[in-house]
Formats: sequence, C-alpha cells, structure tokens
Amino acid sequence: MKGLHILAEFHDCRCAPSLLRETSALERVAVAACRDAGLTVVAQIFHGFGTPERPAGATGAVVLAESHLAVHTWPELAAVTADLYVCNFSRDNRSAAESAFLHLQNAFRPGRTERQEVLRGGLEPPLPGPANLG
Amino acid sequence: MKGLHILAEFHDCRCAPSLLRETSALERVAVAACRDAGLTVVAQIFHGFGTPERPAGATGAVVLAESHLAVHTWPELAAVTADLYVCNFSRDNRSAAESAFLHLQNAFRPGRTERQEVLRGGLEPPLPGPANLG
Repeated sequence: MKGLHILAEFHDCRCAPSLLRETSALERVAVAACRDAGLTVVAQIFHGFGTPERPAGATGAVVLAESHLAVHTWPELAAVTADLYVCNFSRDNRSAAESAFLHLQNAFRPGRTERQEVLRGGLEPPLPGPANLG
Repeated sequence: MKGLHILAEFHDCRCAPSLLRETSALERVAVAACRDAGLTVVAQIFHGFGTPERPAGATGAVVLAESHLAVHTWPELAAVTADLYVCNFSRDNRSAAESAFLHLQNAFRPGRTERQEVLRGGLEPPLPGPANLG
C-alpha cells in the first residue's frame, strides 16, 4: 500500500490540440507513458465528452498492477490534469513513476506545470505476493 | 480543473472478505458510492489479481464527468486504498465527494483510516461547457 501519488496540472499545453480532444490519442499517450516506464498495464478505459463535431475533452484511467494513472483534458483551457499512484509493494516504483510523469510532460508540452506529491500508506508491507506488482 | 482530491487508506477492514477479493463486488460498491453521491459515472473498469481459486485483490477506476474514483484492495492486509478527485468546474462537488467517501468508509468498515486531501488547480475556471460536469 505504501507508495507515491503524483498529482499534476499541465497548463498552456503546446501539444497538438487533437491530443486534448481525441479520446484515442489521449489513451495512446497514457498507456505508452506507463508501458515505456516499465509499469504493468492491466486495463484501461477512456471516455470523450462533447460530440464528434464538437469534442469537449476526454478523461480516462489506466489501471496498473502497481496502481493507476488517471488523466483528464480541458481543451478549452489547453490544460490537463494527471495523477499517477504507484505502490512500492514488491519493488520501489518511484523511478518508474517519474519516468511516466516525464513522458506525459513531454507529450503535452505544458508551459507551466503544477505538481504535488503525496506519500501514501503508513504500514510497512509484508513480503510480496506473486500477482500484484504494486 | 480546480478541485478536491481525497486520498485514503482504509486499514483493518471489517467488511465481508469477499468485498476485498471479488472484482464484481468491489465494482458495485465503487459505482454505487459515486452514483448515490450524485456524481456522474461515465465509464468504469475493474481488474482482479490472482486466480479464481486464490483471488489476490482487485483494482479499478470509475471515470466520472467530475473526474474519477480509483480503488485498490489488499485482502492479505484487510486494507483498501481509494482516491477520489472531483473538479469544481460547473458546480461545487465537494459535498458529493464527502458523501462518496463516507459511502466507501461505511462499506469497507475500516478500523483505522488515513486520509489526506489535496486542493488541485491554480486557475479559476471559466464558465462551464455543456458536457463536462467536473
């Protein structure tokens, strides 16, 4: 349960506007950020707002063996909120979290980033089980 | 984008053990917590670890028009981590977030709860769009 939760707001994003509007583009970036960082994607779900003619942002979550990444876009503000929680259960996943965060930042190209970190879980975990890498 | 992110660890959960092991049970509670609080569920995804004979916890996310709820169970620790992010874009969703949090707490019946809150987003939002309730 012990882990790191990174919460970020990306403002003034200079990426292609389609990345903030198109659900499939957002999903590709979010999944790639996790996979390229060595995190284990077990499921994902994304949803687009608005209509095909007038897309109004997208939102979604990538469920990880190590916990999750959630992203929400605000195309009208050129902004994105993202939060990534990685548990350090069977191994220390902090460097993977940093790598995934950097991937997102490089994709959205924010002019300004707000970032907060929360250390979660007060119990030392026991030895890891076989299935959950978190 | 401005909003409240509640992050919690529920320890020593006294709920039925099946709620921590069975993906469908966890999903029902998570979705009900959001719906009963008046939040708008747009999608959800849950994943179970282990095998049907030896379930090893479950994890998932409920994607909301107002942002998301993510939950992860640790049956071997009788513990759950949950985080709920609600944006206050077109309305103040803080009381709905508190209501959903209370629903989760009542369902998992933790002996001890760790809770942290993060206020997110430094920009005052513009007037709301029609589709995104966050």
